Amino acid sequence: MAGEKYVYLFEEGNSGMKDLLGVKGASLAGMTNIGLPVPPGLVITTRACLEFNSGGAKFPAGLEDQILGGIEAIEKKTGKIFGGPENPLLFSIRSGTPVFIPGIADTVLNLGMNGRIAEGLAKEPGGWHFALDCYLRFLYMFSEVALGCDHRKFDEILQAKTRIGNNPDGGLSTGDLKDIVRAFRKLAESETGRPFPRDPRVQLFSAVRAVFNSWNSRRAKLYRKINLIPDSMGTAVIVQAMVFGNMGRDCGTGMVFTRNPATGADELYGEYLANTQGDDVPTANRSPRPIGVLKTEMPGVYRQFQEVRRLLERHHLNMQHVDFVIEKRKLYILHTRNGKSTIRAAVKIAADMAGSGMITREEAIVRVDAAQVDQLLHKRIKPSPGLKVIALGLPASPGAASGKVFFDPGEAEKAGRQGERVILVRTETMPDDLNGIIAARGILTSRGGMASHAAVVARAMGKPCVCGCEALGIDYRAGQFTVGRLTIKEGDYISIDGSTGQVILGEAPIVDPELSEELNQILRWCDEIRALQVRANADTPGDAEKARILGAEGIGLARTEHMFIAPDRLPIVREMILADTAEDRARALKRLLPIQRDDFYHIFKAMNGFPVTIRLLDPPLHEFLPNAGDLAVEITRLRLSGGPLEEIRAKEKLLRRVRQLSESNPMLGHRGCRLGITHPEIYAMQVRAIFEACASLAGEGYKVLPEVEIPLVVDVREFVQLSELVHRVADAVMSETGASFQYMVGTMIELPRAALLADELAEEAEFFSFGTNDLTQTALGLSRDDAEGKFMNLYLEKKILPHNPFEVLDRKGVGRLMKITVELGRKTRPDLIIGICGEQGGDPRSIEFCHRIGLDYVSCSPYRVPKARLAAAQAAIRQNSESRIQNLE
Amino acid sequence: MAGEKYVYLFEEGNSGMKDLLGVKGASLAGMTNIGLPVPPGLVITTRACLEFNSGGAKFPAGLEDQILGGIEAIEKKTGKIFGGPENPLLFSIRSGTPVFIPGIADTVLNLGMNGRIAEGLAKEPGGWHFALDCYLRFLYMFSEVALGCDHRKFDEILQAKTRIGNNPDGGLSTGDLKDIVRAFRKLAESETGRPFPRDPRVQLFSAVRAVFNSWNSRRAKLYRKINLIPDSMGTAVIVQAMVFGNMGRDCGTGMVFTRNPATGADELYGEYLANTQGDDVPTANRSPRPIGVLKTEMPGVYRQFQEVRRLLERHHLNMQHVDFVIEKRKLYILHTRNGKSTIRAAVKIAADMAGSGMITREEAIVRVDAAQVDQLLHKRIKPSPGLKVIALGLPASPGAASGKVFFDPGEAEKAGRQGERVILVRTETMPDDLNGIIAARGILTSRGGMASHAAVVARAMGKPCVCGCEALGIDYRAGQFTVGRLTIKEGDYISIDGSTGQVILGEAPIVDPELSEELNQILRWCDEIRALQVRANADTPGDAEKARILGAEGIGLARTEHMFIAPDRLPIVREMILADTAEDRARALKRLLPIQRDDFYHIFKAMNGFPVTIRLLDPPLHEFLPNAGDLAVEITRLRLSGGPLEEIRAKEKLLRRVRQLSESNPMLGHRGCRLGITHPEIYAMQVRAIFEACASLAGEGYKVLPEVEIPLVVDVREFVQLSELVHRVADAVMSETGASFQYMVGTMIELPRAALLADELAEEAEFFSFGTNDLTQTALGLSRDDAEGKFMNLYLEKKILPHNPFEVLDRKGVGRLMKITVELGRKTRPDLIIGICGEQGGDPRSIEFCHRIGLDYVSCSPYRVPKARLAAAQAAIRQNSESRIQNLE
Repeated sequence: MAGEKYVYLFEEGNSGMKDLLGVKGASLAGMTNIGLPVPPGLVITTRACLEFNSGGAKFPAGLEDQILGGIEAIEKKTGKIFGGPENPLLFSIRSGTPVFIPGIADTVLNLGMNGRIAEGLAKEPGGWHFALDCYLRFLYMFSEVALGCDHRKFDEILQAKTRIGNNPDGGLSTGDLKDIVRAFRKLAESETGRPFPRDPRVQLFSAVRAVFNSWNSRRAKLYRKINLIPDSMGTAVIVQAMVFGNMGRDCGTGMVFTRNPATGADELYGEYLANTQGDDVPTANRSPRPIGVLKTEMPGVYRQFQEVRRLLERHHLNMQHVDFVIEKRKLYILHTRNGKSTIRAAVKIAADMAGSGMITREEAIVRVDAAQVDQLLHKRIKPSPGLKVIALGLPASPGAASGKVFFDPGEAEKAGRQGERVILVRTETMPDDLNGIIAARGILTSRGGMASHAAVVARAMGKPCVCGCEALGIDYRAGQFTVGRLTIKEGDYISIDGSTGQVILGEAPIVDPELSEELNQILRWCDEIRALQVRANADTPGDAEKARILGAEGIGLARTEHMFIAPDRLPIVREMILADTAEDRARALKRLLPIQRDDFYHIFKAMNGFPVTIRLLDPPLHEFLPNAGDLAVEITRLRLSGGPLEEIRAKEKLLRRVRQLSESNPMLGHRGCRLGITHPEIYAMQVRAIFEACASLAGEGYKVLPEVEIPLVVDVREFVQLSELVHRVADAVMSETGASFQYMVGTMIELPRAALLADELAEEAEFFSFGTNDLTQTALGLSRDDAEGKFMNLYLEKKILPHNPFEVLDRKGVGRLMKITVELGRKTRPDLIIGICGEQGGDPRSIEFCHRIGLDYVSCSPYRVPKARLAAAQAAIRQNSESRIQNLE
Repeated sequence: MAGEKYVYLFEEGNSGMKDLLGVKGASLAGMTNIGLPVPPGLVITTRACLEFNSGGAKFPAGLEDQILGGIEAIEKKTGKIFGGPENPLLFSIRSGTPVFIPGIADTVLNLGMNGRIAEGLAKEPGGWHFALDCYLRFLYMFSEVALGCDHRKFDEILQAKTRIGNNPDGGLSTGDLKDIVRAFRKLAESETGRPFPRDPRVQLFSAVRAVFNSWNSRRAKLYRKINLIPDSMGTAVIVQAMVFGNMGRDCGTGMVFTRNPATGADELYGEYLANTQGDDVPTANRSPRPIGVLKTEMPGVYRQFQEVRRLLERHHLNMQHVDFVIEKRKLYILHTRNGKSTIRAAVKIAADMAGSGMITREEAIVRVDAAQVDQLLHKRIKPSPGLKVIALGLPASPGAASGKVFFDPGEAEKAGRQGERVILVRTETMPDDLNGIIAARGILTSRGGMASHAAVVARAMGKPCVCGCEALGIDYRAGQFTVGRLTIKEGDYISIDGSTGQVILGEAPIVDPELSEELNQILRWCDEIRALQVRANADTPGDAEKARILGAEGIGLARTEHMFIAPDRLPIVREMILADTAEDRARALKRLLPIQRDDFYHIFKAMNGFPVTIRLLDPPLHEFLPNAGDLAVEITRLRLSGGPLEEIRAKEKLLRRVRQLSESNPMLGHRGCRLGITHPEIYAMQVRAIFEACASLAGEGYKVLPEVEIPLVVDVREFVQLSELVHRVADAVMSETGASFQYMVGTMIELPRAALLADELAEEAEFFSFGTNDLTQTALGLSRDDAEGKFMNLYLEKKILPHNPFEVLDRKGVGRLMKITVELGRKTRPDLIIGICGEQGGDPRSIEFCHRIGLDYVSCSPYRVPKARLAAAQAAIRQNSESRIQNLE
């Protein structure tokens, strides 16, 4: 359009003009405006590109003049002349789009070059070698970008010169360079059939034209189509004066962070390589030196850096990652962006910046990647050279451990008692193996997924576990496992990292977790902001204490089955299950009562003043019995080897009971409240244990808030039957003890039918807790055990599912059921307490969803509590800012 | 209320006055009005009862006078006198509520009796014995109902007389009766502390008062509360002149049906016992004689019966069940109601009545109990005396068979080839046993539910099967089973009835099924009325043909896995599954291709012109492999007994693969379209087989309408990947053969997530079919295999679930998902075809629901097709009549 401004000098633009100048152009304008030492330049607008492309590949009227006008201004600033044989001004040409798009033309450096100008350049400190190096690079890039030549032919020429490619800077003589320059120019001319453009202006305009054309390259168009980026966006072109880090020892290039990206310390951090041109740093064979050396070598430049660092952070309000060039002891900033850091550093930087008032507390909270926070909370293997990773399994329970390999749980227990550090290695684990698991520092299995027995128990105990490591060939009889050609014998050392799934040979160095003061600070700010309560899933007094320390405001799920599998109880539990008569069963239950009461007593005590949700027994009874297949094999062996008849008979009887109880789909079987309906005596014992503990603690002045939770409900009639039992026992305990205590009775929502009938359930239930593990399994018809480590990977690879729905809530399916539940439930009972205790309750994306649909709390394993506090606050902040925006609109 | 009419003579009422006169009162009024010989009487209204109860237990003003007036009218009609010493008029007093309510006062017979009146009665032909018998009964009933005495004390007096209770009519002498009468009166007086009322009017009023009071008995009030029956309904009181069947040989009582209730034949059917009073018939030791004897003994009465039969049916438009009394060769009708008949008779009666224009076709259709129709379609055991039922299992697959017991499938097969009728008896069956199942007439197992392997395969093959018959102690090694003290050896005869679950010793007589002309007639009328299409679930050409004969309009579900387990294919299928290399797998698939093609060819041919939905492979691959436990035992045995090393190694390899593939919850595992995603080559083979069959048949002039169905979809991305594969193969087959054919690609909706995302799925899928078996399992988190025969019974007993949700659709949960699916699916694609192929598709109540939510078809096993046609028509009729009623309102 006539009269339109197509060209902006950097100082004419600003950092908000991304649409017109592209991200890079706007950034350079912004940097220039805050007074950073940016080499001067101009930006040709995206509108110019669009008019070029819609106007038959012709520059819009006035564009050439505006470019030349801009160049004149740059000449004035630099004192150099574009196309001048003395003191020549060279340019870099770059594309700059408003959003990232691949397939747009690459960079051309040192534009404005020809033989005569090279002579002028050779008068600079770098001499002919420097001048020819610049010329060579220009020819290479310009030929490819502007002339459309295939770079592979140029590479062949480079390869032909010995040692080329190994060390192009230091290795080529000036003569070599001259030969290559000549050969490059000839090749370009024979490829295009035209003389190589010598006129710097022609070079400039054809480079600009090439960038404009590349907007419609096949690759760029396809990418825009897939990502719904409008074709009417266009690309800007940045024309910037070259500065040279390769003119001598007082020149160089490098990159710095404005803070230490590993620790977050408030100090300049980075590296620097003398006498090189920008693009060399990543490939150079010379090692760069820490930026600190400048303090003595070029103290002026170092002071300049400190000033730049201050300017950059004040402007970007974030740690910056900066590319720079030093030309004759003068610092130039080429590029800056938000720096990536470790989670440890990110936490410290955010806390420091908010502490100094540079950013708000909300901004500090949002900056910390919640997904990474639990990296700070488990022991981990210190990444070190020489670690020998021998296999990779599923990261089933975070943390790291090293120790001696043991296969037999009994042996493991014995070794543990003798003070050995034990890693228990099994194909898979069973309730029978619990003594070995308890004795072990870490568990490694070759079979089973994230929900296998080993994984669940290990997570519950906070022990590291790697599961389903199929590469292991375990041979119990030989007392060894093989992996590839390696054989590891019982007693050999290995290390495992349950956060990454790595299995490492020998003893790897292990680092302890710590909650830094900065993280604590940020979490306290989170607690002030978040709407969601954060509770913990905890089954033991130890876990409950840990959870309180990490900030949990109660227990959202105390699973009573884990109390059943402890080695001192399992025999009694089995007696109870296998009882032939009601009296035998009652006797076993009577023995379990004081043990359960003791569990609850200590959990309640640790959670003094906070609510504790106790789920009544959930798993099918056969989970507490030995495996039928193993028993059958054992019986066959005993029979054929003439074993004692009495033992055979006893085992056969046991096998019959195991088979009677066994199920083809235990996940959908006789468990949860179905057990409560068929075996009310078990639930009655558990409820009595809960209330007797309450009564004792009430007498000692503690505040106990038990929430009795009935699992696997599909119909309100199940709930009514069992809640009546709960009330009956509560009344009995109160009248027996004279104590009085409050309690609630509620239900898990873990089956689709329960979600769909939430209005009816809420008539009776005082709280809901989403069991999203089972809800996901049933809504998707997907057994976690059977999917993970099997077809789930393919599903994620093929993007059939965006995430593993057992880690990240499936919002479309499971989430819809949750929304229905919340709506229906609160319609009946507006003050219904609703939480989530499935594993997704510790996942930041899932927590955001829980916040949005109005849950009261999330509950997750103790070590995920800090992450959940953070994610809950982030969700609240995001929603607030969205509603502020909506209010503005 | 003053002036209100509280008393209606029968002839003053009509059959519509149920609210005021109660059901019985209105019925007696109706019978009287159409000219039936009803003993005269009156009805005291429910309003009188209400005013009595609200007015402090006093008769409303005018009631006594109205009653006495009514009695006067009855005296005139009968020529007898109430309270008269000669020719005395006695009454029966009964309660009569508008709806059934238990706990309302019982009947009093022979009211109006005292010593003097008994003397008058003794002048009748029955003499003193008759008179005292009447008196005794009156005292007994009146004391209990009106005086509130405990009948057990009266029973003791009766017991004290020898032989009493065994044969009270024939066995007691007149002297005995006199003693008892005296004792009864004394007992009543000592119990109440007052003289026994001798005045017939006092008797009458206190009986009426007793009925009124009983309206508020604890039991009646509780029942009303539970069933939401308003307390403001009240009970009427019926006062009816007694007639006596016990006055001599020309008297008697009995009951008749207006048609034959066993066959439906249009003839008087019933029985008659001379010289008895009404209530004796059910307990009398004398055997009643067929009503036909009256033809010669009392031809006048028999003629009267024919007239009564005509009147009754014309009035009630239904077969009637009539209680009658003959008093001195005169017929009296006491009571009539719609008669219960066998389903066979019901069908014939409905067809005959509609054929003669007595009722409409719609009425005929509605009268047939759809739930019973399939009783007409399977072989069944003819109920005969002397059948020895030795055990009861689950009725897993309908039909009956008898034959020799075989335990070993191989032996069974051999015997079958030699023409033996075989009953295969196993603890449970496996795919390996298929040869034996094929050879057997029927299958009997001691383990497993309605969805066990044996049950599913038997239903698919249309063979009778009794499952989970836990009373059997099967001992394979001894070649026998025990049940109680009985031992049945291999080769002994037994019979099983898969419709009832009965196991019978020896060869029971078996009756063939037949589709009667009347049933066919009614089903043709159904076809004109119903909106729902009826398809069949059929996996073989034989089933497809059977389905067509029974009226199926296509196949709604052809399961391809049943084609995989046939004994000629299973080895190839195993080869395919166990293949070490892609080439080995491809080779096995290539061998399966022509076999599958042949299956489809013949199914399509049988269904010429009708749609056939083929579900691609659904079950997990391990279902086709042997059981891991058995293999492990086998290996242990081989090892310890020094078996050949090569065999051990091979079995160990097999075991490893079986274990690799085994799943903890196969229902939720690697199956359905998940197999298609991970093993596209299997689906590609199946689809090719389908389309090659289409191409052949198109060439032969058949019309093929295949609907390729992708099972277990949870996300549209699964569907897209696999439907693309289907289209690719279809295109290939068309271009290879030059043939052209139509086809559709759709999906099962069998997981909650699919239901919730039906709008997205309908973007791609051309049809939906509800797999309500799996949808029920997942929505309720309930494995059918594990629930049935275990805790499901308790759930039904305790009324936690109203029905077994695998038999009758769970409307509240699964039904809600179905409604969501239909709404969402049709929003995206208004012409989306939606059907149901789960087992509930053959259940009438579920079919009604499917009709209401607008499905296009139901699909069920071939033998249930007639039932489904009927149920679909009934659903349409009911909905039409409801909307007619709504239009009127």
